[in-house]
Amino acid sequence: MRQLEDITTPALIVDLKTFYSNLEIMSACRPGSTLRPHVKAFKSSAIAGILKEAGHKSFCCATIREVEGMVKAGHKEDLLLANETLDASRLGSLVSDGARVTVAVDSAMTVIAAAEGGIREVLIDINVGLPRCGCDLSEVEEIVSLARRYGLTIRGVMGYEGHLMFTSDRKERTQKVSEAMEILREAHSIVGGEIISAGGTGTFDVNTYATEIQAGSYLFMDTRYAQVGLPFKESLSVLSRIISVDKKKRWAVTNAGVKAIGMDYGKPSIEEGVVGICSDEHTTLFPVKKEESVVWNIGETVLMKPSHVDPTIAKHPKMLCVEDGQVVEEWPIDLRDW
Amino acid sequence: MRQLEDITTPALIVDLKTFYSNLEIMSACRPGSTLRPHVKAFKSSAIAGILKEAGHKSFCCATIREVEGMVKAGHKEDLLLANETLDASRLGSLVSDGARVTVAVDSAMTVIAAAEGGIREVLIDINVGLPRCGCDLSEVEEIVSLARRYGLTIRGVMGYEGHLMFTSDRKERTQKVSEAMEILREAHSIVGGEIISAGGTGTFDVNTYATEIQAGSYLFMDTRYAQVGLPFKESLSVLSRIISVDKKKRWAVTNAGVKAIGMDYGKPSIEEGVVGICSDEHTTLFPVKKEESVVWNIGETVLMKPSHVDPTIAKHPKMLCVEDGQVVEEWPIDLRDW
Repeated sequence: MRQLEDITTPALIVDLKTFYSNLEIMSACRPGSTLRPHVKAFKSSAIAGILKEAGHKSFCCATIREVEGMVKAGHKEDLLLANETLDASRLGSLVSDGARVTVAVDSAMTVIAAAEGGIREVLIDINVGLPRCGCDLSEVEEIVSLARRYGLTIRGVMGYEGHLMFTSDRKERTQKVSEAMEILREAHSIVGGEIISAGGTGTFDVNTYATEIQAGSYLFMDTRYAQVGLPFKESLSVLSRIISVDKKKRWAVTNAGVKAIGMDYGKPSIEEGVVGICSDEHTTLFPVKKEESVVWNIGETVLMKPSHVDPTIAKHPKMLCVEDGQVVEEWPIDLRDW
Repeated sequence: MRQLEDITTPALIVDLKTFYSNLEIMSACRPGSTLRPHVKAFKSSAIAGILKEAGHKSFCCATIREVEGMVKAGHKEDLLLANETLDASRLGSLVSDGARVTVAVDSAMTVIAAAEGGIREVLIDINVGLPRCGCDLSEVEEIVSLARRYGLTIRGVMGYEGHLMFTSDRKERTQKVSEAMEILREAHSIVGGEIISAGGTGTFDVNTYATEIQAGSYLFMDTRYAQVGLPFKESLSVLSRIISVDKKKRWAVTNAGVKAIGMDYGKPSIEEGVVGICSDEHTTLFPVKKEESVVWNIGETVLMKPSHVDPTIAKHPKMLCVEDGQVVEEWPIDLRDW
């Protein structure tokens, strides 16, 4: 079995014990179909298989490619494209082949695209405060009646309170989520249906209104989510290698840069040093105090914790699962691209 | 032939006329082997083939995967890994199979790794001011004599003045590059060899000392490079589609987010609006003036110009080449990952 030091770097590393601990904590709180794991976080049909074994058979996806890959891997019991699309014909063919695919709609055009693309089931996506997708409450009736005219079955509503995921005070988060869900409650009184889909890792236990929570990041966590005070721990890092050290040991350079680590929530974090310049395939590390020397030698590995797991994972072809310092499994990240 | 509007989004789009114009401007200034195109910028063996037809037969790479893919595609006349590695045995097997692969070294450990990995030719990488790789002038002699003891042929020196790429005042840039190259000149007086490899898109014509310039971004440019006043124009964008518009038209949402666009130099730019929140697979666009309405309708396409092309390209499986609004060619991005 391979040790951590023998791995070709940069590489995505999953600490398996922490991963399974995160999984268990969530499954205990949100068992079975009360969790709809979000495939966008991990983009791996192998991980979807693990979640299925843990009792979660319904999934949500952010891209059509994710839906296609999930169907191909046999995870086709209940897939939700939790996103609007004008390109629904790619999904219709999956439905014809026996997959259950539900699509979020928030406008006349997305309703028509769904119906004409061969989709049979939809959720009405409601804007609950995040300036992104989802229709206004005043638009719901018209969209519902159009969807019915087009013969679509409306399974319920969806509303993503993404603007509240990182509200660190739990009481404030609970209160604000409750207000956002009031909007969804009103929408549901118009729409009906058995599904009220909402939430994410940050609101998994304070969103008590949704019938299902759309969470994925909880499996890995990241330095941004770590600040929210959730029960999940960081299980994912990018393993890099020191390839150069300044003569005076003022800095060291690893071989993982912005092509290996998502930077939209900020730089990655390391132990025993400060992350400086991130280039394409390098990151320069400095000592914690400027007058000190860096602690690393050429050839040593450094684990870098990303600030945002989702785009970090999307940059890699696979995850290496580590237990007691040894690689015990590989999970292909097979649902990348579009 | 496909029109722009029919493309599955998000997608990388190359404006072919601008691309070839950039290529010609550079090739006129830096013909043949005076340019060593940097594969890291485009990660596509098809584009390497175009550069070869334009007379550039030597390339540099940032990753071993890029070198491997270039050899596989038949571009193996003269490949430089312009980066340090401890993992040179992956390259040695390419050398045994007839590829010419030179590796940058800046320490005893990288020299030994190269020699033991089956590499026969190296460049001594010199730090010329960027706090990243490259040895100090005082270390050169020892590294050179170690390399010779290990039987390596030293082809010359390399020194990347990456900290000067975006100095927008041309006179200042010229002066500072000249100072950085003084360090390389001193190193070369110790090392010897026919190659003095340096530079990039930002210093392609002001670095008059290097025998070869390592540039790649000039083919595409980006909003950051656009501020430097170079003769190259932006040829690359991410094509996205409007999938949702706020009822009051305060914002519109495209289906290209941080998984499709590199964000390390900042948000992408668009015409007729302002880029707001970038999520994984969405970007919210606002009007230029807050009190105005957004100009887009659902289903319309929006071209987004990235701030940094290299990591943007690395997120995509292919580029679609467009001429007069039609897709005339596809270039696979086949050298991703590691």
